[in-house]
Amino acid sequence: MKRFVLLVVVWVASVATSHGDEPLPSWNDGAAKRAIVDFVARVTDKSSAHYVPPQARIATFDNDGTLWSEKPVYVQLLFAIDRAKQLAAKHPEWKNEQPFKAALEDDIEAIMAGGEHALLELIMATHAGNTTDEFSQIVKDWLAAAKHPDTGRPYTDMVFQPMLELLAYLRANGFKTYIVSGGGIEFMRPWAERVYGIPPEQIVGSSIKTELQIRDGKPVLVRLPEINFIDDKAGKPVGINQHIGRRPILAFGNSDGDLQMLQWTAAGRGARLMLLVHHTDSKREWAYDRESTVGRLDKAIDEAKRKDWTVVDMKKDWKVIFPSRKKP
Amino acid sequence: MKRFVLLVVVWVASVATSHGDEPLPSWNDGAAKRAIVDFVARVTDKSSAHYVPPQARIATFDNDGTLWSEKPVYVQLLFAIDRAKQLAAKHPEWKNEQPFKAALEDDIEAIMAGGEHALLELIMATHAGNTTDEFSQIVKDWLAAAKHPDTGRPYTDMVFQPMLELLAYLRANGFKTYIVSGGGIEFMRPWAERVYGIPPEQIVGSSIKTELQIRDGKPVLVRLPEINFIDDKAGKPVGINQHIGRRPILAFGNSDGDLQMLQWTAAGRGARLMLLVHHTDSKREWAYDRESTVGRLDKAIDEAKRKDWTVVDMKKDWKVIFPSRKKP
Repeated sequence: MKRFVLLVVVWVASVATSHGDEPLPSWNDGAAKRAIVDFVARVTDKSSAHYVPPQARIATFDNDGTLWSEKPVYVQLLFAIDRAKQLAAKHPEWKNEQPFKAALEDDIEAIMAGGEHALLELIMATHAGNTTDEFSQIVKDWLAAAKHPDTGRPYTDMVFQPMLELLAYLRANGFKTYIVSGGGIEFMRPWAERVYGIPPEQIVGSSIKTELQIRDGKPVLVRLPEINFIDDKAGKPVGINQHIGRRPILAFGNSDGDLQMLQWTAAGRGARLMLLVHHTDSKREWAYDRESTVGRLDKAIDEAKRKDWTVVDMKKDWKVIFPSRKKP
Repeated sequence: MKRFVLLVVVWVASVATSHGDEPLPSWNDGAAKRAIVDFVARVTDKSSAHYVPPQARIATFDNDGTLWSEKPVYVQLLFAIDRAKQLAAKHPEWKNEQPFKAALEDDIEAIMAGGEHALLELIMATHAGNTTDEFSQIVKDWLAAAKHPDTGRPYTDMVFQPMLELLAYLRANGFKTYIVSGGGIEFMRPWAERVYGIPPEQIVGSSIKTELQIRDGKPVLVRLPEINFIDDKAGKPVGINQHIGRRPILAFGNSDGDLQMLQWTAAGRGARLMLLVHHTDSKREWAYDRESTVGRLDKAIDEAKRKDWTVVDMKKDWKVIFPSRKKP
């Protein structure tokens, strides 16, 4: 039997407020904002030679220093230090062993002095031994209570308001937004959907191995003290290919750890946009680049200048840094 | 300045044709179809206690034997054999070494007799040594020319029409459909979007390692002869967690290699649907289960009976198996 459906949808949308029409309201007018808006216009315009169909509109974002603050040190390291303190009673030997001794004494400098090896050792000891569900809950509980040592704000309030607007703007224009971070994939997943609107399946990060076990007759994934993948530097294109299987057309980072992701993005055919956050605002956030241990930006900013990538000057380009505090 | 927008959208949709309203037209009415349709109705009905919000509607499908035929042997193994022949001139030693000798002689039985080790050795030697872009092209070229040894049809025509309808039906109901296969992730990505409507980022599979290299000043990902991950049996929940980070609410397999994926899916809270294709149709496809080397279905069908999972009897439940041939 044939059936005819007549739908009359009357949609009255009142787009009010003075800034309602302008994308990226927390971005000052300038070269960076213009580069973004022009790029989005070009790739979404079907009559443009640079048109990109929606399924290929992949945008990848570093997390630490790109979507949220990474000073005085990566949030995940502060989490690991707190976890070490919680677990210390079971590990009396940590009082005399580095990097655990340093963690228990809040001596971040000593931990960082141990280099990548010390960091990995601390991460493994504090992030493994539980199930994926348990670890997710531990991360949520920690973030709900922890406060930034300088600002006293929850870490999830120290995300960058202009970047939240950019993520939403890209999604409204048919982009799929991904995090591609050196941080732990299971450290980001429990909160990234709520905070950034980025679902678990669009997060690429470093990981430890997991193993399927049966506990009380139920399958669980147990987190093992063994590195699975390091999603940093040359690992970022590998992680992007493994996880997404398409090359991004837009990539946004803030440090030398993002250089290969930007190069990989730039090397594709068609319209491309490569961006870096330059931390230049010592008053509202932090100012650092070539000499910083955390988020060092040295080679990548030189390459950005040579190749005309977009460098976002935090002090000049952003009207606000953090979202306004919610009323209590 | 305030601005008010009034949009009047008049949408006249004529849903015609006699079967237009009925989902899954190639499925016979029966317990399997009813289980699917009831489940979808339940999880999409906001007033139901079993309602699942769209972002959590994750459905995972095995590929070989679930979405396309796997007889006489996995398509990827036939690809590996053809690749071995192409590469043989560079490897004179293969004439006398197993499993290569067997591959060059089309002796599938001898390859399978070598077990998993022989299969992996053959896959590594024939799938590595090129870039990800080159490999993707090699797969596309091979699939465009290769024909199934028994039916003479292209392999991508030997997908299951009822499953194509199911994938589309789930997506129309807000599900995200994933492949979770023991097959190679990079072997499936070049064609799965065109054939199944499943994009590269929604494919989970086995993989070899890749490495970022610079060639002619451009970054490339080179495929290394080293296993990265085996997405089979107990590896499927690991792959699902690593890649998707959410537990599926619907999982569909056809063999013991899918048992842990179904158990992992079943162990979640809320509405769940676990399904198996049982290959029962020796005339239109193949009939096999407990004794088959390829796609052995033994433990999983016992567990399906014990736990009241849905078993699809290919012969009884499917009106057609393959899509009708396109006119030349």
